[in-house]
Amino acid sequence: MANVPSDIEIAQAARPQPIVEVAKKLGISEDELECYGKYKAKVLPEVLREREKKPDGKLVLVTAITPTPAGEGKTTTSVGLADGLNKIGKRACVALREPSLGPSFGVKGGAAGGGYAQVIPMEDINLHFTGDLHAITTAHNLCAAMLDNHLQQGNELNIDPRRVVFRRVMDLNERALRNIVIGLGGKANGVPRENGFDITVASEVMAILCLSMDLTDLKERFKKMVLAYTYDGKPVTAGDIGAAGAMAALMKDAIKPNLVQTLEGTPAFIHGGPFANIAHGCNSVQATRLGLKSADYLVTEAGFGADLGAEKFLDIKCRVAGLKPDAVVVVATVRALKMHGGRSKKELGTEDLKALEAGIPNLQKHIENVQKFGLPVVVAINRFPLDTEAELALVEAKCKELGASFALSEVWEKGGEGGRELAQKVVEACEKPSHFKFIYDAKMSPKEKMEAIAREIYGAEGVDFTPQAEKDLQVIHELGKDDLLVCMAKTQYSFSDDATKVGRPSGFRITVREVRLSAGAGFLVAVTGEIMTMPGLPKKPAALSIDVDEHGKITGLF
Amino acid sequence: MANVPSDIEIAQAARPQPIVEVAKKLGISEDELECYGKYKAKVLPEVLREREKKPDGKLVLVTAITPTPAGEGKTTTSVGLADGLNKIGKRACVALREPSLGPSFGVKGGAAGGGYAQVIPMEDINLHFTGDLHAITTAHNLCAAMLDNHLQQGNELNIDPRRVVFRRVMDLNERALRNIVIGLGGKANGVPRENGFDITVASEVMAILCLSMDLTDLKERFKKMVLAYTYDGKPVTAGDIGAAGAMAALMKDAIKPNLVQTLEGTPAFIHGGPFANIAHGCNSVQATRLGLKSADYLVTEAGFGADLGAEKFLDIKCRVAGLKPDAVVVVATVRALKMHGGRSKKELGTEDLKALEAGIPNLQKHIENVQKFGLPVVVAINRFPLDTEAELALVEAKCKELGASFALSEVWEKGGEGGRELAQKVVEACEKPSHFKFIYDAKMSPKEKMEAIAREIYGAEGVDFTPQAEKDLQVIHELGKDDLLVCMAKTQYSFSDDATKVGRPSGFRITVREVRLSAGAGFLVAVTGEIMTMPGLPKKPAALSIDVDEHGKITGLF
Repeated sequence: MANVPSDIEIAQAARPQPIVEVAKKLGISEDELECYGKYKAKVLPEVLREREKKPDGKLVLVTAITPTPAGEGKTTTSVGLADGLNKIGKRACVALREPSLGPSFGVKGGAAGGGYAQVIPMEDINLHFTGDLHAITTAHNLCAAMLDNHLQQGNELNIDPRRVVFRRVMDLNERALRNIVIGLGGKANGVPRENGFDITVASEVMAILCLSMDLTDLKERFKKMVLAYTYDGKPVTAGDIGAAGAMAALMKDAIKPNLVQTLEGTPAFIHGGPFANIAHGCNSVQATRLGLKSADYLVTEAGFGADLGAEKFLDIKCRVAGLKPDAVVVVATVRALKMHGGRSKKELGTEDLKALEAGIPNLQKHIENVQKFGLPVVVAINRFPLDTEAELALVEAKCKELGASFALSEVWEKGGEGGRELAQKVVEACEKPSHFKFIYDAKMSPKEKMEAIAREIYGAEGVDFTPQAEKDLQVIHELGKDDLLVCMAKTQYSFSDDATKVGRPSGFRITVREVRLSAGAGFLVAVTGEIMTMPGLPKKPAALSIDVDEHGKITGLF
Repeated sequence: MANVPSDIEIAQAARPQPIVEVAKKLGISEDELECYGKYKAKVLPEVLREREKKPDGKLVLVTAITPTPAGEGKTTTSVGLADGLNKIGKRACVALREPSLGPSFGVKGGAAGGGYAQVIPMEDINLHFTGDLHAITTAHNLCAAMLDNHLQQGNELNIDPRRVVFRRVMDLNERALRNIVIGLGGKANGVPRENGFDITVASEVMAILCLSMDLTDLKERFKKMVLAYTYDGKPVTAGDIGAAGAMAALMKDAIKPNLVQTLEGTPAFIHGGPFANIAHGCNSVQATRLGLKSADYLVTEAGFGADLGAEKFLDIKCRVAGLKPDAVVVVATVRALKMHGGRSKKELGTEDLKALEAGIPNLQKHIENVQKFGLPVVVAINRFPLDTEAELALVEAKCKELGASFALSEVWEKGGEGGRELAQKVVEACEKPSHFKFIYDAKMSPKEKMEAIAREIYGAEGVDFTPQAEKDLQVIHELGKDDLLVCMAKTQYSFSDDATKVGRPSGFRITVREVRLSAGAGFLVAVTGEIMTMPGLPKKPAALSIDVDEHGKITGLF
């Protein structure tokens, strides 16, 4: 493992196949593509429309234990699993989230897998890619500009400038734009009010893109987005200010799934990437459905640990899009489990069965959770060089106790070849009977839905609501939005809402501090802690060492 | 002319050639392209590099009389002239500016020619196109974010937050962002200071893109951009804060010229579009040079009237890039000349030789100006249905008096067929001896350079400098920047700095109110009036009627 070159070295040394050849593996012809250079393409919506009646391939969700600083390698495993499935003779593709550009300039590190399990061209994927995030930024900010223009031009809708809930977005880490005052400089320059910028992936436009079935659905969802309230408390939507059509026009290409490839030429859809706290954290419904109609296995991932990512994938995305998963892979590492057992990152270098045993309940709870959805579980241990045989055997035994399959994954070091065992276990799991069901019924009250997730998935004893949350729920009730789904915004570092409680905490309650309305996306966001929607740059941002030579070759990005 | 359908109807009815076929007309192979869908492509920088030693084709600049509300049709004429040149058997292409996305949602109307002289795909060109403007927005704003992060993280460079001259940009009409206060919300959220957004095309990054010879030159120019001043008055550049490499990495694709086509399949480069007041208002040097190396005739245009656009094209762009124009086309209409003769827009419907004669001196002054640069002039009258034979004859006679060629252009109605006469006159003009020279010497002092432009080109009696301008010039002198070129920011509606003085005013002086330093672009901006760098939306913005159907077809954009 020590001899594996850096991610960008591996990626730049790769000899990618022309994207038209990759598309052929999915039965997609050159005429059905819009190429962006030789190695990226968008797939025309007609392809999905024509395949509507074809049976779906197997849907495999890759999720993970509760994240730790030791890292789990969820994207890497997803990519390597798809490559591994192809190695064992199955026709597989992978669908991933589209990374945000901003963080690339903050802390080093891309979002396209790692080692020999990567998607390429990685620089493009991590920078402008096919422009989807720029389209989202522009559509979102056009809506904001039209709102402020409405205020400026007479405010016919009687909007209260103090109650504008729609912020602006930018795809950069922009600390100084979190809280701003706009419209200064006198009458000709707008109505002064407080405002701020979120990072683009936190935009409701992104969540909507990812949940829309087509361009018409997208536009209808835009219309429902609540931007502000009037002086007498009525919601004002993007439809009310007439922005939805122009926003959809700006998104006409962004809605088409992007096709790239893994290092081994496996087709990879990378499309949409909403936040996993204030949104549902999965790639687009369009890409997932296209993959299911085009391959025998579609591997996809969800953000954060299974308590957040998988829960939202299953309760929100699958419900909205009518998807039925066949198996769930829970990625873990021995190192991370030892951290859940109480060790610090420095103490992971030696065999430590005690810490491991103490940490395994975190994995077990995630396994149980997936089983509550009625789905077969495969635990993938992303193998590290210092993992001992005894440690791996212990994890395997504990998984078996719960009826979960177990596989070692060495895709980081060996690519698809290192994913054969995992692929085989996934194929077997997909043959098992699946009894997929949701954790809550959409008809339950918002509080009941939040209670269900907290009790069933987090293992909480109940949910408390602050006065602000009660007030928010009252408004939501009055707006007739009680039947929306629930999107929990909780720390990813614990089952509880306290990031320091690793492992499998018990005897805790969840506090919902605030409930936000994402009426276009179709969910209520239950905020249980500080949620950062605009990151800042660190003292020495990665941007300082990023450069490009005269031939356009980028260095320092990863 | 009454039977011509709308611009978007014509454009959407067109049957474009695959862009790889269009490229072949320039001897550019499919391998030398990066396609963006089937009808847009970027040309790899290798193509220009390999053709360095080839002789240039003829360079034809299209400019215009002083703009009036009656319209002149400069882009339409440029497109139609290139089509016309092809009609008469010459191998021609056209290089145009890339439109800003923001104004598409404000006042209806695109920027891709009109009638049967358009470039396509027009919706794409007017919306995201190939993402160049998004790359500029991102590179610019990354630099701004790094500056604010520097302030936040200890301010080692001792930057005075009150003296940050670098604003942020957005490619939208965003009145409410013109003047803002950022960094609010306490210590974790930045250093509070005044700031504001300009529209992206006003960014110095755009001007730099358009004047750079290659990616290395681009990066070196970024390094020189002055962002702020320290508490002791020293300039702080993008190089000082370490942003230039990452900015250039973001621009690695944006720097490649975009290739599209006219309705008649003539190759059209559309690349870069800086403001024509605070910047030089021409498409990129890269695109112009590539066109010159690839065709026998390269037709290009410059912003506003010839006093601004042509002067900057000739004194700035040609000087920086070592270009030698062969002929200049001055576009005029009978209607516009009558407005310069004192008529209002409502009074243009009947023959009016008196008003025409009174307005022709505006055209004559522009002809004289081009002749001062030592270049042959062709006047192109963009013919309208109500123009009478007597009116056209009068303009022709006045042109001949000054030694300028004259041609009627009917490209709007007839495409290239309507541009044959103009094309023939342009070919003849290109055969005339050219004695190209600049209006000022770069070694002159900034004041002398401004005086030269004002006296020679505007016909002013001299230049006055406000105390602010004197102070700015003193700072520029102390920074050793006296040898930069001069970019005049003056109203486009008059030769003078008073927009109401149409025709050929005399006996006036120009007042320079402020001098801005664009050290990366390599010029000093002499501001002679209110310059709007961020437009606002009108009461009924075009966005309200823009829509897209389920097949992605856009309506209401033009």
